Amino acid sequence: MLQYKNISILGSTGSIGTQALEVVRANPSLYKVDALTAQQNASLLIAQALEFKPELVVIGDETLYQQVKEALPNTKVMAGEEALLAAVQLPQTHLVLTAVMGSVGLKPTIAAIEAKKDIGLANKETLVVAGELVMSLAKQHGVNIIPVDSEHSAIFQCLVGEEQSAIEKILLTASGGPFRGKDREFLAKVTKNEALKHPNWVMGAKITIDSASLMNKGLEAIEAKWLFNLQPEQVEVVVHPQSIIHSMVQFTDGSIKAQMGVPDMKLPIHYALAYPNRLKTDFERFSFLKYPELTFSEADTKSFRNLELAYIAMQKGGNMPCILNAANEIVVDAFLKDKIGFLEMSEVIEQCMNEMDFVAQPTLNHYLETDQLTRIFAHQLVTKQIVTHLK
Amino acid sequence: MLQYKNISILGSTGSIGTQALEVVRANPSLYKVDALTAQQNASLLIAQALEFKPELVVIGDETLYQQVKEALPNTKVMAGEEALLAAVQLPQTHLVLTAVMGSVGLKPTIAAIEAKKDIGLANKETLVVAGELVMSLAKQHGVNIIPVDSEHSAIFQCLVGEEQSAIEKILLTASGGPFRGKDREFLAKVTKNEALKHPNWVMGAKITIDSASLMNKGLEAIEAKWLFNLQPEQVEVVVHPQSIIHSMVQFTDGSIKAQMGVPDMKLPIHYALAYPNRLKTDFERFSFLKYPELTFSEADTKSFRNLELAYIAMQKGGNMPCILNAANEIVVDAFLKDKIGFLEMSEVIEQCMNEMDFVAQPTLNHYLETDQLTRIFAHQLVTKQIVTHLK
Repeated sequence: MLQYKNISILGSTGSIGTQALEVVRANPSLYKVDALTAQQNASLLIAQALEFKPELVVIGDETLYQQVKEALPNTKVMAGEEALLAAVQLPQTHLVLTAVMGSVGLKPTIAAIEAKKDIGLANKETLVVAGELVMSLAKQHGVNIIPVDSEHSAIFQCLVGEEQSAIEKILLTASGGPFRGKDREFLAKVTKNEALKHPNWVMGAKITIDSASLMNKGLEAIEAKWLFNLQPEQVEVVVHPQSIIHSMVQFTDGSIKAQMGVPDMKLPIHYALAYPNRLKTDFERFSFLKYPELTFSEADTKSFRNLELAYIAMQKGGNMPCILNAANEIVVDAFLKDKIGFLEMSEVIEQCMNEMDFVAQPTLNHYLETDQLTRIFAHQLVTKQIVTHLK
Repeated sequence: MLQYKNISILGSTGSIGTQALEVVRANPSLYKVDALTAQQNASLLIAQALEFKPELVVIGDETLYQQVKEALPNTKVMAGEEALLAAVQLPQTHLVLTAVMGSVGLKPTIAAIEAKKDIGLANKETLVVAGELVMSLAKQHGVNIIPVDSEHSAIFQCLVGEEQSAIEKILLTASGGPFRGKDREFLAKVTKNEALKHPNWVMGAKITIDSASLMNKGLEAIEAKWLFNLQPEQVEVVVHPQSIIHSMVQFTDGSIKAQMGVPDMKLPIHYALAYPNRLKTDFERFSFLKYPELTFSEADTKSFRNLELAYIAMQKGGNMPCILNAANEIVVDAFLKDKIGFLEMSEVIEQCMNEMDFVAQPTLNHYLETDQLTRIFAHQLVTKQIVTHLK
């Protein structure tokens, strides 16, 4: 029954990557690590490589190659973005966990699919930017895309054994982040430290800001649209502050299935690695005595304009989600560097959506170009090189 | 994809039976009714037969045979309990919906399984009384047992596509009934009219009293144990007054799946008839705006001793659940006839459990004998023919 799996992890030093390695550490008889990659955190990457003994180690930042190679004299070490493509194509690998941040995950994910590796997808930008392309490749190569985001994992789990055609809609739950219930006047003044305090989830900085601005939920909605082959109107967001119900599926007969648990990313990571099996864990169990009340409300898209923008991009299709995502990466970085305010993030994104060239049927090259050009334009807006457009 | 199904309904004039026929009425191209049976409601049975044109009609009460036969001159009509066995064995029938009340459902269910009919199980006594026997027969004959109780349907739906071995426990939700939060002093004085007012579900009188006394949840726990092949300690009851989450499964990895919806029996009935498909319905959809808060608490087994008794019977096994169930049928009838009080119901049941002969490995005949003897003893207790045992 239980399959032994060879896995490669893109982004092994990040929040998802390190938790995935905890799962591997706890199940040494089930998993073997083939490749580990990191962008900059050379010391942690080295420590991981010494522990898990992968065949290949990739450091994204080429200036760190020497340091990594010297620490791992008996391991194959490569550097640079192109080396990620080698890391996903080792012949014995069954599953590639894509836990890198941002649109850098796109090319290696496609390479992994073409090499017929199952994908543990923790890089939502891959589907946000190029969902149509990626899903059609996955179908063509008979590859499973197993989502690692807790929301998409929840939906995936609810759909096990069900027909895709039986989906009426999905209900993505949103904690609402640290600023739930706040108005625009309040949001105009929030600081990055306030935005970095997520009430339920411990995550990286970028996704924590996205959670505070609800862009994370918008990106998840677009990701879900592609992952589960839905129309935009089949994707609904429900605010659920306790983050216990991780998401839901409503079927055509009116029945709803929900997946629940304590908010801990280890659970969906573990599920993605073990799929189609469920393995016994000693993770904390959910208890209704601790959560006697679960509450729900509508999302406030007036105050949190990012969510509205994401739906506009999803409905528009083409390269619009790519524009949204690229602009968002720039503005979150700028917000984290105190260059722009919380609400200005939406303004820059919207301006990019209005002014970048729209491509209705983009190829991979269109996506890559859109991504690059949008970043440049958003950067100009952020650094006030185009001041007239910002109020 | 969609299968045309021939169905027979045992107990077509009851709450479940009439709702099942509503589903059939709404999907004339999917279902054909082969047989309809009722105990006493001849006029409704006749009306149903005229509408759905079954091959066979069975009236349980033999004194009503002439009336039914005269109204249905062109239909085969039979009478008496044995005739139920004919109603479940028509060669063209795919699914038998067992919606009769009480242990009278046992023999025809076994006959249907032996005739290799799938079972839509709305008669919980079948599994409470003889779960081990029935489930092993179902396995032997390759028959699906699709539960119709909303709780068991919820669990069944959560388990679609999952391995039985991945179940850690199930969480049966209980509304708590009309007397949730009340103490024994209050319960000692409640009337049948108060007990018949269920806050969420519209059901028959017997099950409504069982809901008020939590015996319904106890019987469901035993039913679930057999249906899903669990140990008693894997069956947990959670009080959830809104009855929106119909029940849950916790898996060995810690993940929980829940099935939810408006409290309407038509949904699980529809699911059981359509399984393994899901068909589009126009049933009311659940909305979180209507239910912004879902609450949960532990069951109070001190005040509601019936639930405790059911767990004792489940742990004891053998013919003990059969004793519990038979005694309960007598006491509920007595309570509905104002012969005993609400709390006395538990006392009579417990006394039966203490004094009836225990059989660890019962055969079908043991079950039938236990059922009969317990009814006689419980009846004696109720009518104070054995006064010393009641305080």
